Amino acid sequence: MKKVTAFAPATVANVSCGFDILGFAVEEMGDKVTVSLADEPGVRVVRIEGDGGRLPYEVDKNTCGVALKAFLAAIDYKGGLEVELYKGLPLGSGMGSSAASSVAALEAANQLLGNPLDKKALLPFAMKAEGVACGAEHADNVAPSLLGGFVLIRSYHPLDVTKLHVPKGLYCALVHPHLELNTADSRSVLRQQVPLKDAITQSGNIAGLVAGLYQEDMGLISRSLQDVIAEPSRSVLIPGFDEIKSAIKEVGALGVGISGSGPTTFILAPSREVAERASEICQEVFDKIGLEVDLYVSAVNTKGTYVINKA
Amino acid sequence: MKKVTAFAPATVANVSCGFDILGFAVEEMGDKVTVSLADEPGVRVVRIEGDGGRLPYEVDKNTCGVALKAFLAAIDYKGGLEVELYKGLPLGSGMGSSAASSVAALEAANQLLGNPLDKKALLPFAMKAEGVACGAEHADNVAPSLLGGFVLIRSYHPLDVTKLHVPKGLYCALVHPHLELNTADSRSVLRQQVPLKDAITQSGNIAGLVAGLYQEDMGLISRSLQDVIAEPSRSVLIPGFDEIKSAIKEVGALGVGISGSGPTTFILAPSREVAERASEICQEVFDKIGLEVDLYVSAVNTKGTYVINKA
Repeated sequence: MKKVTAFAPATVANVSCGFDILGFAVEEMGDKVTVSLADEPGVRVVRIEGDGGRLPYEVDKNTCGVALKAFLAAIDYKGGLEVELYKGLPLGSGMGSSAASSVAALEAANQLLGNPLDKKALLPFAMKAEGVACGAEHADNVAPSLLGGFVLIRSYHPLDVTKLHVPKGLYCALVHPHLELNTADSRSVLRQQVPLKDAITQSGNIAGLVAGLYQEDMGLISRSLQDVIAEPSRSVLIPGFDEIKSAIKEVGALGVGISGSGPTTFILAPSREVAERASEICQEVFDKIGLEVDLYVSAVNTKGTYVINKA
Repeated sequence: MKKVTAFAPATVANVSCGFDILGFAVEEMGDKVTVSLADEPGVRVVRIEGDGGRLPYEVDKNTCGVALKAFLAAIDYKGGLEVELYKGLPLGSGMGSSAASSVAALEAANQLLGNPLDKKALLPFAMKAEGVACGAEHADNVAPSLLGGFVLIRSYHPLDVTKLHVPKGLYCALVHPHLELNTADSRSVLRQQVPLKDAITQSGNIAGLVAGLYQEDMGLISRSLQDVIAEPSRSVLIPGFDEIKSAIKEVGALGVGISGSGPTTFILAPSREVAERASEICQEVFDKIGLEVDLYVSAVNTKGTYVINKA
C-alpha cells in the first residue's frame, strides 16, 4: 500500500445549548485527502483543489501539514508523506472546513502507516491544526469529524471527549448564506458574565438535549434546543435567522442554531422529508432577503472519518 | 378499601453540576403517610409522629394538607380524608423532608380513591406544598420522590420533567451534621452573575453527568460531578465539606456535593462497599470537628413513592 484516500465529514459545533461543548458530524459533505508514501523525508502538500486558491501549501500553515507533522513526530516516523487535499467544504463557513481537512489527512496517514494509533488518539494532532487555522485548539469540530455522531467535549484540561448516542432518523439541514463573518467579531459580541438564571436554563437545556438523544425522544430534543447564552447576541449578525427559526418549527423541524460561529445555520429534523421541507423554507427566506445561499440536507454521520480508497 | 399507607423517599436536590435542575431519590430513608376515608368532608391531619412536635396540624400549613387539598380540588372529590404522617426524615436537613411528606400523602390518597390520576400528574400538587414549606414551588425534591431515580427539571414554564436512566450499582451516602442552616443565607451567598467560562464548564459537566448515567460510565459520572456555580460559595457554610471531598475520592467514591441547600452532604459511589467506606471516613472527619452527624448509606431508589399497605 502506497497511497490512502480518506473522507472526513463537515461538522456543526456550538450545537445551540451545547455552546462550546458539543458538536456533531454531517453525513454527506466533507473533504477528501490522499496521503502517499514519498522518498524524501517530511510532509509536503503537493495539491489542493476546490479552495479557489486560498489555502496555503506551506506545511506549517496548512491544517493537513500541521496535523501530520505532529502525528509523525508522535509515532517517531522518519519517512516522507505527500498530501493531496480535495476541498468539498466552503472555507470560513462555520461547517468545520479546516477540521475536515486535518482529520481526513490524519485518518489517511494512520491507515497508510498500518494504524499505529487508534482513532481517538489522533485528536490532539487535529486540535493542533485548529490552533493554526482558528487561533485556538478547539475540539468541537475535529472530535465529531474524527469520531462521528454527537461528541461532547466535557473538559479541555484534561481533555475529556465522549461520543453520545444518535437517535435513528435524525437529519439536519445546513444553510450557508454567501457572506463572510469575522470570527473575532462573532466572539466579541459574547457577554463575559451571564445571569445565574441563564446559566441554569442553559444547563437544563443541555441536560435535556443529551437525555433526548439517548432516549430517542424527538420532543425533548426539540424543547431543549434553545441557547440563551450565545445565540441572542450572535444571531443578529446572521440575516434571516429569526425568520428561519420561527418558520421551520411549523413544518415539524426540531430546532435551529448557529453552526460554529456562523454564518451557516443548522436545522435538526426527525426525518429527511422534514429536513428537506425546512431547507425549502430557508431558500424562500433568503430569496426574499436577496442573498445567495447553499443548502445541504444530510443524515447525521455516526462513524466519523473513513477510508475511501487504498492503492 | 378505607385506608392506604404510602412511603416516599428522601431526595437529593441540586446534584452538584445539576444545581437547580436535577434531583435523585434515595432507597432506604423516607416518610410514611396513611390516608383514610372520613365521613366529614375536607382534609384533616390527625396524627404526626417523629417531628418532635415541630410540624403544624393546620391543613393549609402542613405540606400533606396543602398537597391533598389541591389534589381533591383537581379531581373534584367532595368527600373527606384523614391524614397520619410518620416522619422518617429530619426536618430542614436538605434531604427533601417536606417533599417526602406531601408525595407520600398524594400517592396514598390517589390509590385510595382508585387512581384517578397517573403519578406524574400528581407533581403540581406536591410543588404547591413545596411553595408553602420552602417559599418556592421547586420540583427538584418532589419530582424524584414521586417518580424515583434521577429526575431532570429542564424547565418550569412550561414544566418539563424527565426521568433519566440509573446505572446498576449506584449507591449514595448521606451525611447529615447536626446543625441548622438558614436556607435564605444559603441562597443569598450565590452570585447573580456567573463568568461565561463557568457557565460553559457547568454545561459540560451536567452533559457529562447525564451521558454517564445513560452509558453507565462511572468514570464519566465521577469526572462530571463538579459544581463551579453554587458549591464554591455554599460549601464554606458546611463544616468538614472540603475534608470529605478530598478524602472520599481515595476510597473510590465518585464525588460529593451539597444536598439541596445543605447542611447534608451527599456522596455517590459505584457500590455499597465504597459508599460504606466513604461514610466511615465522614464519621472520622466529624469526630475530629466535634460535631454530631447522622450517616445513611442507600441504593438510589428507581421507583419513587409506593404503597406499603392497604386496608
